[in-house]
Amino acid sequence: MQKFNAKVKVMLKKGILDVQGKTVENSLKTLGFDNIANIRIGKFITFDVEADTIEKAKEIANSAVDKLLYNPNIETYYLEIESIEGNI
Amino acid sequence: MQKFNAKVKVMLKKGILDVQGKTVENSLKTLGFDNIANIRIGKFITFDVEADTIEKAKEIANSAVDKLLYNPNIETYYLEIESIEGNI
Repeated sequence: MQKFNAKVKVMLKKGILDVQGKTVENSLKTLGFDNIANIRIGKFITFDVEADTIEKAKEIANSAVDKLLYNPNIETYYLEIESIEGNI
Repeated sequence: MQKFNAKVKVMLKKGILDVQGKTVENSLKTLGFDNIANIRIGKFITFDVEADTIEKAKEIANSAVDKLLYNPNIETYYLEIESIEGNI
């Protein structure tokens, strides 16, 4: 078995109003940040996966994200996976 | 003025218990994902910045994050900034 690290970015789909982002944007404007726009706030999730190959690790990670970590109706995600050490 | 895109990862500091991550980890184990561990859940924030130079854009972005987007007591952040188009 090898150990891998997965990094997942989960963002609201384009076209879905990002209420949290809009709120922060308004607050920043109140603070004088007039040059900042289009704030989108999503989730950044990291976890370790043990698997025999990187392909298998990616499959497990994708499956976990699909089952629990994102809402396919309103969100999209991007997953990266990399080896973090030798065999264990 | 040029336009830049900022990407910010905000994570709980090491040593701070990630309750949300722990909860998700337990749920994944219940679903049969025994090979996943160390889940940490943070925020992924993107926004556009208008500035004359990339250094100035980075300064504005860091200042915005410092003032509103993270809690220095329990979180750390990592900021990346890149040009997204020519002059505007």
